[in-house]
Amino acid sequence: MTAPVAAAPLADFAAAVYGACGMDEADARLAADTLVQADLWGHQSHGLMRLSWYAARLKSGVCVARAKPETLVDAGALCVFDGHDAMGQAVAAQAMDEAVARARRHGIGAVAVRNSNHFGTAMYFTLRAARAGCVGFLSTNASPAMAPWGGRAKTIGNNPWSWAAPAGRRAPLVLDIANTAAARGKIYLAKQRGEDIPEGWAIDAQGLPTRDPVAAIDGVILPMAGHKGYAISVVMDMLSGVLTGSGFASEIAGPYQAERRSRAGHMAIAIDIAKIQPLAQFEERMEQLIAAIKAAPRAPGVEEIFYPGEIEARNDAANRAAGLSLPDDTLADLARLSRAYGLESKLPF
Amino acid sequence: MTAPVAAAPLADFAAAVYGACGMDEADARLAADTLVQADLWGHQSHGLMRLSWYAARLKSGVCVARAKPETLVDAGALCVFDGHDAMGQAVAAQAMDEAVARARRHGIGAVAVRNSNHFGTAMYFTLRAARAGCVGFLSTNASPAMAPWGGRAKTIGNNPWSWAAPAGRRAPLVLDIANTAAARGKIYLAKQRGEDIPEGWAIDAQGLPTRDPVAAIDGVILPMAGHKGYAISVVMDMLSGVLTGSGFASEIAGPYQAERRSRAGHMAIAIDIAKIQPLAQFEERMEQLIAAIKAAPRAPGVEEIFYPGEIEARNDAANRAAGLSLPDDTLADLARLSRAYGLESKLPF
Repeated sequence: MTAPVAAAPLADFAAAVYGACGMDEADARLAADTLVQADLWGHQSHGLMRLSWYAARLKSGVCVARAKPETLVDAGALCVFDGHDAMGQAVAAQAMDEAVARARRHGIGAVAVRNSNHFGTAMYFTLRAARAGCVGFLSTNASPAMAPWGGRAKTIGNNPWSWAAPAGRRAPLVLDIANTAAARGKIYLAKQRGEDIPEGWAIDAQGLPTRDPVAAIDGVILPMAGHKGYAISVVMDMLSGVLTGSGFASEIAGPYQAERRSRAGHMAIAIDIAKIQPLAQFEERMEQLIAAIKAAPRAPGVEEIFYPGEIEARNDAANRAAGLSLPDDTLADLARLSRAYGLESKLPF
Repeated sequence: MTAPVAAAPLADFAAAVYGACGMDEADARLAADTLVQADLWGHQSHGLMRLSWYAARLKSGVCVARAKPETLVDAGALCVFDGHDAMGQAVAAQAMDEAVARARRHGIGAVAVRNSNHFGTAMYFTLRAARAGCVGFLSTNASPAMAPWGGRAKTIGNNPWSWAAPAGRRAPLVLDIANTAAARGKIYLAKQRGEDIPEGWAIDAQGLPTRDPVAAIDGVILPMAGHKGYAISVVMDMLSGVLTGSGFASEIAGPYQAERRSRAGHMAIAIDIAKIQPLAQFEERMEQLIAAIKAAPRAPGVEEIFYPGEIEARNDAANRAAGLSLPDDTLADLARLSRAYGLESKLPF
């Protein structure tokens, strides 16, 4: 670790890299913000560490810098987007916003997205719905990462999904999980940091348990909660891939594969809270739910009970104040990108 | 275990009990079928074992035998039901069917349900959507069963949720899970059978790990997947309780509490597949997904890989052919009910 770096110039730098890759200003800004925001939340596995991956995919052309989603079907509360291989972050943001707009008109709205790309951190997008007074849901499929229950070869992705809801004076309630025992990004981060991974996260290519992140990347990550996590992941592929008309199962390429079209699909759903009860009443009830959770008797050694999304909100506030402490490998990656794109003057460290 | 009993006369008997409790013919038939169907799927924890619990709640009046859901809000694709404390099974079936009807008109449809009751097995209702050519989702909240992550007192329910989708020549894809490491019903079943429960399912009232189902019922069940299962359960309470305007957290009473109003809420969502792609194409794609899963290389000792919902479909076929082998305690319960309601002549064993 070197000295902390402020978020704003890091976002400017990432946007400049995306701009140099051919993205227009608005999409470049958005995609850059998703990375910096992930770091601010403490999700370094989905932060600026990934900028070089996305840049490589834009350079190879499998991710199309200036493509825009097209509406293929308009069924009222539901529509279908073809992402035309655009950056997943830009597609997901537009899909979530469109789901919110349709929820305003119909009570609930949904956008089925095909032919998109890896969109990074799902909660970035469901929080847009929460800030608009909606409950938001977003799922995606992802490249094969786990075996079916009883299998030993990668067949289905970790297929992340997220729900978010506003919570009045509290930070929003947020769920954002992959269905593996650990997100693949965390295994890459352990590899980058030269650390072992915990037991129970993965088996190696021979099917044996491993704590070596390199062996885990070559092997198979285990699902969370055993067969339940397996079943959830299959359902998220049904919803994000099979139903939307996108790729599914082994058809999906990952963000670290620079030369292969993604074919990832997403499902975005928004529910307009005010159609069911006044938003202020919902928020007051959310505050009550959170208060009940936080007031529960604590297990020995536990200082405070957190509700889902609270730790990220605290990290965000702390990191915005103190600046981001990024791993040395990530800083080296950003320096390499600055040279590759002639952006040395924009590098903020 | 005594000799197997055929499903149809068991359903007739359960319907007669519900009828004697004051339910009308159609609701009694439906509620009876949900119990027998759970047994047919191999989910004895949610089967006829529960008939006496529901009968006791109908008798005490906290579950209102002849109440019917009322539509409070019609927002187009979304509506709000007040269940008026009717049987959860009748309310959930009507909500799911109404979500399907709204999906037909708007692409996606949803029903937010307040003031319902425990509805039994969630997949019974999402399968109604799947058979109607929709992807179905249903969530509910439930009485406090787990501590928040880092806590040691029951604060939030196991809050089950389900997704289902048709799969062409295959049985539908179905997810139906509670967010605890094990469904509470399975701990009651272990108690009824006099069996230990596996490690990792629960802690006792002092916060110590236990394999005794009685101590587990007095203690706290652990969430599946650690903090992830905790977060999912909080979200399902937000969706089913806070958002719908129903009870939430400790306000919810369980089906085994004969004297307390439930206040459970549900969220039912349906997506009309044919609005996105031809149903036959979706089903063919589902068959491809399932074929890919089942063809994965198997771990040592595994005979066959199953997709979610497949085992239940096989159990259903086998049990319909052979009859249901119910635990002795359940048979004794049914015999007691037959005497209590003067229905000895209807008892099919």
